[in-house]
Amino acid sequence: MLEMPTTVLTIAGSDSSGGAGIQADLKTFAALDCYGCSAVTALTAQNTLGVQGVHPTPPAFLEQQIQSIFEDLDVHAIKTGMLYDTENTRAVVRTLRTFMKPDPDNPVRQSIPLVCDPVCVSTSGHTLLDPTAVSVLIEELFPISTLITPNKSEAELLLRHRELPADIRNLDDMLVASKNLLIFGSKGVLLKGGHLITTTSEVTQFSTAHPDITVISQGMLDENMEILKVGALPEPTELVADVLSISSGSTILFVRPRIDSNSTHGTGCTLSAALTCELAKGQSLEEATRLASIFTYSSISTAQSIGRGHGPLNHLHGISRRCVSLPTKSNPYPLTHYLIRSNAKAWKDYVEHAFVRQLGEGTLPQGYFVHFIKQDYFYLKYYARAYALLAAKSTTFSGIQDATKSVLSILHETGMHKQFCAQYGVSEEELESTPEDAATTAYGAYLIDVGLQGDTTKLLMSLLSCLLGYGEVGLWLKKEAEREGSLIRIEGNPYKKWIEDYSGKDFQAAVKFGLDAIETRAVDDPPSSKRLEEWRVVWEKCTLFEKGFWDNAMGRD
Amino acid sequence: MLEMPTTVLTIAGSDSSGGAGIQADLKTFAALDCYGCSAVTALTAQNTLGVQGVHPTPPAFLEQQIQSIFEDLDVHAIKTGMLYDTENTRAVVRTLRTFMKPDPDNPVRQSIPLVCDPVCVSTSGHTLLDPTAVSVLIEELFPISTLITPNKSEAELLLRHRELPADIRNLDDMLVASKNLLIFGSKGVLLKGGHLITTTSEVTQFSTAHPDITVISQGMLDENMEILKVGALPEPTELVADVLSISSGSTILFVRPRIDSNSTHGTGCTLSAALTCELAKGQSLEEATRLASIFTYSSISTAQSIGRGHGPLNHLHGISRRCVSLPTKSNPYPLTHYLIRSNAKAWKDYVEHAFVRQLGEGTLPQGYFVHFIKQDYFYLKYYARAYALLAAKSTTFSGIQDATKSVLSILHETGMHKQFCAQYGVSEEELESTPEDAATTAYGAYLIDVGLQGDTTKLLMSLLSCLLGYGEVGLWLKKEAEREGSLIRIEGNPYKKWIEDYSGKDFQAAVKFGLDAIETRAVDDPPSSKRLEEWRVVWEKCTLFEKGFWDNAMGRD
Repeated sequence: MLEMPTTVLTIAGSDSSGGAGIQADLKTFAALDCYGCSAVTALTAQNTLGVQGVHPTPPAFLEQQIQSIFEDLDVHAIKTGMLYDTENTRAVVRTLRTFMKPDPDNPVRQSIPLVCDPVCVSTSGHTLLDPTAVSVLIEELFPISTLITPNKSEAELLLRHRELPADIRNLDDMLVASKNLLIFGSKGVLLKGGHLITTTSEVTQFSTAHPDITVISQGMLDENMEILKVGALPEPTELVADVLSISSGSTILFVRPRIDSNSTHGTGCTLSAALTCELAKGQSLEEATRLASIFTYSSISTAQSIGRGHGPLNHLHGISRRCVSLPTKSNPYPLTHYLIRSNAKAWKDYVEHAFVRQLGEGTLPQGYFVHFIKQDYFYLKYYARAYALLAAKSTTFSGIQDATKSVLSILHETGMHKQFCAQYGVSEEELESTPEDAATTAYGAYLIDVGLQGDTTKLLMSLLSCLLGYGEVGLWLKKEAEREGSLIRIEGNPYKKWIEDYSGKDFQAAVKFGLDAIETRAVDDPPSSKRLEEWRVVWEKCTLFEKGFWDNAMGRD
Repeated sequence: MLEMPTTVLTIAGSDSSGGAGIQADLKTFAALDCYGCSAVTALTAQNTLGVQGVHPTPPAFLEQQIQSIFEDLDVHAIKTGMLYDTENTRAVVRTLRTFMKPDPDNPVRQSIPLVCDPVCVSTSGHTLLDPTAVSVLIEELFPISTLITPNKSEAELLLRHRELPADIRNLDDMLVASKNLLIFGSKGVLLKGGHLITTTSEVTQFSTAHPDITVISQGMLDENMEILKVGALPEPTELVADVLSISSGSTILFVRPRIDSNSTHGTGCTLSAALTCELAKGQSLEEATRLASIFTYSSISTAQSIGRGHGPLNHLHGISRRCVSLPTKSNPYPLTHYLIRSNAKAWKDYVEHAFVRQLGEGTLPQGYFVHFIKQDYFYLKYYARAYALLAAKSTTFSGIQDATKSVLSILHETGMHKQFCAQYGVSEEELESTPEDAATTAYGAYLIDVGLQGDTTKLLMSLLSCLLGYGEVGLWLKKEAEREGSLIRIEGNPYKKWIEDYSGKDFQAAVKFGLDAIETRAVDDPPSSKRLEEWRVVWEKCTLFEKGFWDNAMGRD
């Protein structure tokens, strides 16, 4: 039922303000459903206005953090962010070399994807890593990396380091640079164009000149979307392009509208963290890049302004609250548990109704029971029709079959009603000509109404209170009858057959089937809070109808 | 549309393995939809087997991290975890005193809730804080705390520090201890009983002896839940109880089943982080404790085993993936964007059909157009019935009204069809006696079928491809007609009226209305991936029907 989480590791700096570094990484990991762990290369005191202080981690302690992780956890992918200095870069390389060794006994470790975000130049163009550290990065970290993700300035710095052409001004320069950067030995290079501006016409020209390069446009209202442009902002004139070059030969251009936003603090961290998650899940470089780019793009475009400077992204845009808990061994029916809990009084008034107690004690006046049986007989006609409607609404053979079986069980159940009537001297003719009470019509017609209004799950929800309630009553009476000092009894009870029918194997199997059916739906198709509330209302209404049904039988309405 | 996130701060240690410390806090913050920031008191190298190393943060740098945060961000609640030593505890107190001062100009800062998890004893009973640090905690941090959350050992240590009775062995001891701990000046004390074992009968006795104390049971299958116990684990004999005592006088006992689990690393961090989120959102101490306890309980009960020792909790149990992006200014219709994108070819084949091009160029043979108009006339009968069914399925007056308006518009639209027929010499009699094509019946009956199967959103989905497609065709023809060199023309086109009708204000307003309707539903009631896929299938099928409709008119099927 529960899947083992995918574990990913970030080796990066800590950003106190929570927008970049391991904080951005951990948030991204959570948003992409991965288990995150982290080794901190340096603490920073920073906020959206700038970096106010840095406290580097001693290299030996950085190494120790990474060791602690690898000696216990199965890491499925790794990213490196800010490594801070030469010593820490060396420490990371040294440790990763030890733990990324292919291990025939441990398939997970055979080749752990490594995404290296070569943080070496600040947004303002300031070099963050000294030349020695850059050499270590190039010579030792890149060759064991699956993907490196430099931005324009970083790419230029890296290329200059090898005296390669380094001025990146347009898409053609990006293409050449990304291919040249492959010489450092990573499997792929994702050259990020966020600091360059391109246009639709430049992309078209580039695409025409390089027919072998796939262009993937993201977040754009493109052809055959005239209707969507009406309420939207004017079409973007400025675009952002990233180029992915892979050592196997292929190149892909990812194009997105430039977003005019201040919420860009930690964009590089977020992208490389998302790439790490996707690679950990087994995606190809191309698909991981596509998914991670759109995740990052949406994180920027949905961000609210936080802080007075360059604020963080909205890493949580892609998650919503799960309203029904996941099933566990101790609580295998969390949806039903919620429904009962949320209407505890109505449910108790129903399943421990005076009618039930008196029936269990054998003191229920016979007239009340007969009244109930007659009205329940009419109710079963609606109940059978509601299951027939469920069959008609089902789109799978198994759905049609399950619903139809229920119709047949209900028709069979009416035989019991006729028997009871015969036992109490009520002829079939009298039964059929008994007027249907308003309480019966209200409940029965409500089932059909819910069936008309909504989907099959909502219809099931309306059928559940009856099924589960009678199951509960059956089990409760049986349990009470066994309790010392209880007045409830089965033997010698005039209503013994009724109790045995509802506590019996067949009916309880139907209860279990109904429980499983809705619980499975809640797991496979988790309801939003709005839908859950709709279900709760249907459940509550039916529970109240059930109580009213017994009130009515006792002449109490 | 997008709410400003609630910002919460953790001041704690870093756990490299990701299960405790700021990592557990940041994951909990994300899971509870808060924006997290963090000040690191110490780095640890640890995993699920133990702590392999600690690197404390210099006090001045700890202070600087907190300063950077408060000087830029509006913090709504704070938690403190492991403070490590006396100097760091002092640094935290000093800085918080500065920034937690009530500020009449800044309502958020007026009284920021502070949750203090007094981490001073390890699980094995080892003292983590020296006695001086404990004094600072008690004398300086507790008085400014909203809530302190000691476990048994911590509570005993704190009480001994003041020479108060300190042996906590049962619920009565817990009650006394939690009340005594209030003398340190926090508004509330949540004494955690995870290291004590209690039972149902002890809780019942306690509850009888203290009728003024509210008992809240959580995660339990209690009365009137016989049916839920059938498939579940046997009822727990061992319970865990936490006691919340509030300085205003009230006391609440929270009781849960003890979970037999190894996934408990970071339980205290998780609980205090969740408490912080709930207090930040404005919950009372009682409600915050209730919500945070159940969050933590579910995080343990749904956790999968990670690592070889005491593994982390499943912080992400309460979130699920949002399948449809949130609307943004540049993409206000993300659901429709997704539907069009995911069936791009079928959509293009439909809205740029040869029928449409030839109609736009004025070259469409008249016989094709007449055939189309006749069949579209029959289709509109289904289309009107489908909207009537939508009205019947609606449960609000506005829903009934909107659907009924559409029925009336469609009836009005048939007038246009009759006019076209008259114009081309087709009498009403001939129109009515024309046989309905199978393509028309297939599409029309499918709408009614979807309306029977599902809820109103699914039915709307089936009605959308026609509405949006004709809107798209209208706008596209109009735009093309304006493009230099295009063969599409409106003036002098024999089908001018048709183009003007569908590109006109009235029809486009209906398109906008339809777009808004489904996009609003996707925001208010976010679909699961299963539901979204059902919608996509309906959309695709209708898009193919639309293309087929024009193929049919051109004699191509």
